[in-house]
Amino acid sequence: MAKSRFEYVRNFELPDPLMPNTFAVVRIDGRGFHKFSDTHQFDKPNDVRALNLMDHAARSVMEELGDVVLAFGESDEYSFLIRRSSQLYNRRRSKINSTIVSLFTSAYVFHWTRYFPNTELVYPPSFDSRVVLYPTPKEVRDYFSWRQADTHINNLQNTSFWALVDSGMTTTEANKTLQGTDSKEKNELLFSRFGINYNNLPPMFKKGSTLVRRDPKSVEGIAEVSTSEQANDGENQARRKVKKVRPYEGTTGEVTVLHEDIIGDGFWNQRPWLLS
Amino acid sequence: MAKSRFEYVRNFELPDPLMPNTFAVVRIDGRGFHKFSDTHQFDKPNDVRALNLMDHAARSVMEELGDVVLAFGESDEYSFLIRRSSQLYNRRRSKINSTIVSLFTSAYVFHWTRYFPNTELVYPPSFDSRVVLYPTPKEVRDYFSWRQADTHINNLQNTSFWALVDSGMTTTEANKTLQGTDSKEKNELLFSRFGINYNNLPPMFKKGSTLVRRDPKSVEGIAEVSTSEQANDGENQARRKVKKVRPYEGTTGEVTVLHEDIIGDGFWNQRPWLLS
Amino acid sequence: MAKSRFEYVRNFELPDPLMPNTFAVVRIDGRGFHKFSDTHQFDKPNDVRALNLMDHAARSVMEELGDVVLAFGESDEYSFLIRRSSQLYNRRRSKINSTIVSLFTSAYVFHWTRYFPNTELVYPPSFDSRVVLYPTPKEVRDYFSWRQADTHINNLQNTSFWALVDSGMTTTEANKTLQGTDSKEKNELLFSRFGINYNNLPPMFKKGSTLVRRDPKSVEGIAEVSTSEQANDGENQARRKVKKVRPYEGTTGEVTVLHEDIIGDGFWNQRPWLLS
Amino acid sequence: MAKSRFEYVRNFELPDPLMPNTFAVVRIDGRGFHKFSDTHQFDKPNDVRALNLMDHAARSVMEELGDVVLAFGESDEYSFLIRRSSQLYNRRRSKINSTIVSLFTSAYVFHWTRYFPNTELVYPPSFDSRVVLYPTPKEVRDYFSWRQADTHINNLQNTSFWALVDSGMTTTEANKTLQGTDSKEKNELLFSRFGINYNNLPPMFKKGSTLVRRDPKSVEGIAEVSTSEQANDGENQARRKVKKVRPYEGTTGEVTVLHEDIIGDGFWNQRPWLLS
Repeated sequence: MAKSRFEYVRNFELPDPLMPNTFAVVRIDGRGFHKFSDTHQFDKPNDVRALNLMDHAARSVMEELGDVVLAFGESDEYSFLIRRSSQLYNRRRSKINSTIVSLFTSAYVFHWTRYFPNTELVYPPSFDSRVVLYPTPKEVRDYFSWRQADTHINNLQNTSFWALVDSGMTTTEANKTLQGTDSKEKNELLFSRFGINYNNLPPMFKKGSTLVRRDPKSVEGIAEVSTSEQANDGENQARRKVKKVRPYEGTTGEVTVLHEDIIGDGFWNQRPWLLS
Repeated sequence: MAKSRFEYVRNFELPDPLMPNTFAVVRIDGRGFHKFSDTHQFDKPNDVRALNLMDHAARSVMEELGDVVLAFGESDEYSFLIRRSSQLYNRRRSKINSTIVSLFTSAYVFHWTRYFPNTELVYPPSFDSRVVLYPTPKEVRDYFSWRQADTHINNLQNTSFWALVDSGMTTTEANKTLQGTDSKEKNELLFSRFGINYNNLPPMFKKGSTLVRRDPKSVEGIAEVSTSEQANDGENQARRKVKKVRPYEGTTGEVTVLHEDIIGDGFWNQRPWLLS
Repeated sequence: MAKSRFEYVRNFELPDPLMPNTFAVVRIDGRGFHKFSDTHQFDKPNDVRALNLMDHAARSVMEELGDVVLAFGESDEYSFLIRRSSQLYNRRRSKINSTIVSLFTSAYVFHWTRYFPNTELVYPPSFDSRVVLYPTPKEVRDYFSWRQADTHINNLQNTSFWALVDSGMTTTEANKTLQGTDSKEKNELLFSRFGINYNNLPPMFKKGSTLVRRDPKSVEGIAEVSTSEQANDGENQARRKVKKVRPYEGTTGEVTVLHEDIIGDGFWNQRPWLLS
Repeated sequence: MAKSRFEYVRNFELPDPLMPNTFAVVRIDGRGFHKFSDTHQFDKPNDVRALNLMDHAARSVMEELGDVVLAFGESDEYSFLIRRSSQLYNRRRSKINSTIVSLFTSAYVFHWTRYFPNTELVYPPSFDSRVVLYPTPKEVRDYFSWRQADTHINNLQNTSFWALVDSGMTTTEANKTLQGTDSKEKNELLFSRFGINYNNLPPMFKKGSTLVRRDPKSVEGIAEVSTSEQANDGENQARRKVKKVRPYEGTTGEVTVLHEDIIGDGFWNQRPWLLS
């Protein structure tokens, strides 16, 4: 039972540090969510409850890990941006990757009943994830543009498809009808056949969900104020307490959810700390 | 919105294949389980409900991923052995690592109420994980020996500690009493002061939990039989159906839970397929 | 000029250890040796001088690095086997890879005039290299079998091709004549048209060159004897001195060059230390 | 002898791509150059012949690999900068690393007699090398600043040390004399005791050697002109021919050797293409 003679096996745990000073994006994807959404009768083409649950799970990740400054989600996927100077877990790749996907998964299952009060969770869903590194701000912006452009394309396609199916087509017929059509044709089809103005659809469907952390510097300022007012301010006390519990986990700016364009410059120019 | 001009960012997703023909061990660890077990009032030194929940979550992983042929768990950690010739997810490291920790986490939260019917889950727990590769069977055996020896050492320490505390000592006094004692002395202390014969403690506490998959070859034999008897055999039909849904995920031998010695040769000699 | 404020750049030098207890094969390949052999008028299909120079360069590598226990060469490539328990350079991949290719290149240029006394070296040749890891002895044997089988196939092809060209065919005609022929047909062509019995060709051409280190244990035995006889034995003194200079570089068994079969069991059964 | 059944061993050659769009620095270091410089009686503290040979070898690397845009050398080390958008060898780490160290080594041995016409090369020298990635221009500049600051510090130390030794001190006494002295004190010692004004030493000793490639765009401009004048212009024809032989190897701007400050902004501002 001498444990020591077995401990050499630890030597096989090789280091896996992320390159310093690079942006890390962790993207999680639902495993088998086609079946999962069927089993749990998700609304088509978009289920608001499911999207809100995804957003909630993503927010849980950001509240736990202060170095995640931005997240973008659509459908059954979510991407998390870790700031480039982060020293989270000494930048160990597996540790970062596994912690994020586990936090997300756990929150998803934990909060299920809040968003699906009348739908029993039949079996536990799961996600996979990967870490991708980007050396420059331009690539980070293009990454998130890629995901938001994908959101738009998928949503236009799915909205058209389910409009056709709801009108009585088989899925095969609907696919055939849409084959080879471009965005403009799909917009016209939606309007002329179903009176749907695509531009009037909810921003959440068209633009996905963006969770963004507030400027950590402003927050620090607020925190100092709150210290001097602590006697009368229960809410700030609570926040301070959280900071004490996890002082090592970096920035703690508040997280806001948005459903707006992140491809243009506006979003980024207003938040220079995201890419600094 | 042209998605294509952003797609180059995919080139930054670099390959991360595991070396072929090596054994992979994925070890998950609870994050902050000291606090989690306090919050949820786990029994000390061992909470049978929590251990059974861990075993259930591990079994869920093995039922989903046929190439996991063995798992060993203690406390808030679990190690999964993937057979050396596995082609699971083309041996992509991040995919394998994240899928296992997500499946485990999801099952843990999902089945919580089954094992803790009277204890509300206050917040979602999480785990991290890593993949370690081993080139030979000897190292795999030594890895699992290392974990089981650790189980024994921790359990003897914790059993002694909590016996002292339950008898009225402060935790500081208990730690001081145990400082520098070896296994024999702890055994004597337990017996002389508390009438506890360590050997009579439940095997689950002393030996941890071993989940082992049955010989996949025998199972294939059984599967053939079941096909010819399908009309009368609902249970086999169900199993066959599962196989159809995930035909690519390798072996499907049944999983058994054991609480016995895996350091000696006996366990392994009876199951040569684990290391072949 | 304060050097210290720049030193953080060292943090970008990430660790690159080879997995412990695996066999490492470093294969070097000539860069642009088609042109190099033309420029220096190598004999076709095999130039004995060039092959001997390759063997000499490989021997230099093995004399410098005691953990390289076996090497196999053909044409402009050479493969070096590092024993599985080696701690050479703490198993740093880049260090091992670059040292071997640099030692080989340096020796090749340095000894050129010895093998090509009448041919001026027109420009400096270069090689590239890579490290490949193998977890088991079987794969190591199959790796070297792969290279030796390749030697045979290339040599039979090249011998046939140049026999046709020497007999007056253009290279295009020769290629066309050989297209689609198997080994047996090439053997027959060589014998019937040119009276060449392929089996009688020099073993070096058919089997490549194998450099193998003697059992390090026997050598240690010899070394002990030599210590007690050192007064009268200048040669052994010299060898001992070398050992002192590089005591960290592992085994120092003598290196022998062979041109024989290494695909069958015989070669390996006689030298169990190579794969132990 | 069926080669095909062994070819599976190629699957163990795993991909090792460098992250896209990052700067790669390959640094080579002499192995055992303390002994090598003693054996070949290098002048102390600096041997102009040896430094010129290093520069020549570095130039050979840059002439072969057009994507190396900058190199810096001192003593027995040289660092090569590969432009960030390079696709050299599909950015394979081992291939790039081994090719550069082999080209350098080969050129060093090949050109030895040119720089040491009266000193026989006693044994073949070797180098090791590694690749370090940097995500931003700032880090690249700081890397080269680190090496040039190191050059200055080493040179001041070595110049002082050998002045003392040449004046009759033992090496032990010289080390003791210099222990704890800062730059200013060493400068004063050199001037007061030996009349050496450090600032007047050759720039090569104080600043190392910088090899820099000319703006590749200007070169392209020249190349276009040369095409239209090809009949009368032997020199440009020759250059064009070289481009045809290695059209895949990127930029082909001429390489200049400098011995000047590269820590300040001037050097870089004049050559924006190095970090673009």
